[in-house]
Amino acid sequence: MLYITRKVNFSAAHRLHNPKLSDEENRAIYGECNNPNGHGHNYVLEVTVRGNVPDKTGMVIDLKDLKKIITENVIKKVDHKYLNHDVDFMKDIIPTAENLIMQFWEILKEILAEKNTELYELKLYETDNNIVVYRGE
Amino acid sequence: MLYITRKVNFSAAHRLHNPKLSDEENRAIYGECNNPNGHGHNYVLEVTVRGNVPDKTGMVIDLKDLKKIITENVIKKVDHKYLNHDVDFMKDIIPTAENLIMQFWEILKEILAEKNTELYELKLYETDNNIVVYRGE
Amino acid sequence: MLYITRKVNFSAAHRLHNPKLSDEENRAIYGECNNPNGHGHNYVLEVTVRGNVPDKTGMVIDLKDLKKIITENVIKKVDHKYLNHDVDFMKDIIPTAENLIMQFWEILKEILAEKNTELYELKLYETDNNIVVYRGE
Amino acid sequence: MLYITRKVNFSAAHRLHNPKLSDEENRAIYGECNNPNGHGHNYVLEVTVRGNVPDKTGMVIDLKDLKKIITENVIKKVDHKYLNHDVDFMKDIIPTAENLIMQFWEILKEILAEKNTELYELKLYETDNNIVVYRGE
Amino acid sequence: MLYITRKVNFSAAHRLHNPKLSDEENRAIYGECNNPNGHGHNYVLEVTVRGNVPDKTGMVIDLKDLKKIITENVIKKVDHKYLNHDVDFMKDIIPTAENLIMQFWEILKEILAEKNTELYELKLYETDNNIVVYRGE
Amino acid sequence: MLYITRKVNFSAAHRLHNPKLSDEENRAIYGECNNPNGHGHNYVLEVTVRGNVPDKTGMVIDLKDLKKIITENVIKKVDHKYLNHDVDFMKDIIPTAENLIMQFWEILKEILAEKNTELYELKLYETDNNIVVYRGE
Repeated sequence: MLYITRKVNFSAAHRLHNPKLSDEENRAIYGECNNPNGHGHNYVLEVTVRGNVPDKTGMVIDLKDLKKIITENVIKKVDHKYLNHDVDFMKDIIPTAENLIMQFWEILKEILAEKNTELYELKLYETDNNIVVYRGE
Repeated sequence: MLYITRKVNFSAAHRLHNPKLSDEENRAIYGECNNPNGHGHNYVLEVTVRGNVPDKTGMVIDLKDLKKIITENVIKKVDHKYLNHDVDFMKDIIPTAENLIMQFWEILKEILAEKNTELYELKLYETDNNIVVYRGE
Repeated sequence: MLYITRKVNFSAAHRLHNPKLSDEENRAIYGECNNPNGHGHNYVLEVTVRGNVPDKTGMVIDLKDLKKIITENVIKKVDHKYLNHDVDFMKDIIPTAENLIMQFWEILKEILAEKNTELYELKLYETDNNIVVYRGE
Repeated sequence: MLYITRKVNFSAAHRLHNPKLSDEENRAIYGECNNPNGHGHNYVLEVTVRGNVPDKTGMVIDLKDLKKIITENVIKKVDHKYLNHDVDFMKDIIPTAENLIMQFWEILKEILAEKNTELYELKLYETDNNIVVYRGE
Repeated sequence: MLYITRKVNFSAAHRLHNPKLSDEENRAIYGECNNPNGHGHNYVLEVTVRGNVPDKTGMVIDLKDLKKIITENVIKKVDHKYLNHDVDFMKDIIPTAENLIMQFWEILKEILAEKNTELYELKLYETDNNIVVYRGE
Repeated sequence: MLYITRKVNFSAAHRLHNPKLSDEENRAIYGECNNPNGHGHNYVLEVTVRGNVPDKTGMVIDLKDLKKIITENVIKKVDHKYLNHDVDFMKDIIPTAENLIMQFWEILKEILAEKNTELYELKLYETDNNIVVYRGE
């Protein structure tokens, strides 16, 4: 059993704001991240799958295939986008790193399962210092 | 003569768009960076000053003072902001890395000159791979 | 269940020396780290908490709060200090990365528990190449 | 129980090619990694051991000793080498990152066991973006 | 006048060997880099151009265009290749970082000149610790 | 003319304090860096030499030789040391990054000149964010 990770990047804007709360409550919870016009980040996403190593190829998964899956299904939908307005699967969801990674998980888990590959972990860097990990637990 | 650099960070959103051009021309020039709602980055800014080293302190400039000057005059105005809408000195200026760094230069050069410190170079990372340098030439 | 990490830095001096052993034994065990006047490092500390994501905020914990807790209770006590002489909770403890991380754990675990937050893991980089992880096991 | 990691580097060339398959099949599976003359990487290897912390030393293991073990038994055998031709333990094994890390595991596990040290995890970076982890599972 | 840098990567194998010298002389000069089967690196190349900033675009050069020029004319010819055997412009040239960067300079300088863009500097990282810079001086 | 850089590391403790000033003045100038027992850093030093590339070797300088010169003459004298107490060439000099890099320059310039190699630039990272450059100007 080996764990294989592919790292990818995207740049996006977002605003942390819960429309069910008052403006005051939003400012109290999210501070500068609640700035009405939003702000943005260079996100880094690490996708880890796991599996056995077949003798024929010596590879758990072809990393070029894995990169293509991540790019087509996740990166193209969020890169150079405003997460609150431009991304279908983030509609009505507050675009925190936590909510973002859980949506990525649902998308990637299903597509990888169709290819008999087990998604093990996602790691999302919003900045170098702020990091979230999800294993579908 | 020594060169001293302080590195700082900020997160901002922007949209590359020239209002004097048609939508088609804008898309042709800026591609995905012209996305109507914008996108964002974690910017890194390196500010380099130069000067002699006085025997009394052994320091060209106190880096805590330099950090404070950069934070008060630049970072606070762009961090967690949408560059096209929220930043006075970017009004009517296309927020490319090139235009951004030239505005930072004007602001910092003047303030540092008041403190008898010579600004030598600014380096701005929009992403790890896209970098612009300005020396006021 | 998500895992959220905040990365922080501090700079400190230390000397590896066990007063219960002879000078010769200390040199044999610690080598150059036993230099009588000590040496120092830029440490990096990654603090990981885990929890569920409430719908209201979309955040396991406010990272600004987490940073404040780490800064007030750990970083302020060790940053720009000599670990053997200046730090109460390292008194009579050899300041290896192992002993340091276990003391950080005790401090942070208790304070985070008061805020109903579960500390999951600490990771301490003494240098880029020397790293220790503790999960309270 | 603490986890201690030592990071080391090596530079090597390799060619991904399964001699039991046709040239066409090899090109289909490995793409540009099947280039007949090979290509190369700066690999980074992180070796993590785990154990308790004895009061006498405050260290799970002396990292200088761990570095020496890794250097003598792994790095010297692969650094500045062509993995397909120059490395005994890779003979008749396709030099993917997966196969490489499993061979490193067998070598290091046995030598560390002789010193009553438990190898916990290996992490191998083929590039910054392609990473494999093995825990002997 | 601004300086714009685009960073790109490639992985290649090479062997340092001067066919005009004896095997002994080659070993004396190049040491382990003279290993007959070669070894390899993940190279990083930073390409810096300079120019003025036209009001119309706010960009010295479109970085997507610059990336395309570098990829088509340099990276595709060296990535996943054995520099001594597979690269036309390195034929009969010892593939040191110095010789490699000077060949890159000739290629890129000419193509960029056709587009009225001035190549200012190339920076090539053979490893994180070994770096060469060339400005055509 | 090419510029070749070798990067090296060392860990050291220091205290910023000018014995000719009062304790109050020292605290005012150096703040937490004036802590009586000192603190420490992982320093990174980049040494850049420049020269032509002889056809015979294709190298400005053998980087293994350059590393050896830096290690023997600078790193061994400061690594795992307390700069104020343990380093001959820092005696009676306030160990700021500025003063440190100027001493390194004097030492390396002379030794490299004996080998007909021109030292071009030193760059010293006290932390990732605080950097000083010296070219002997």
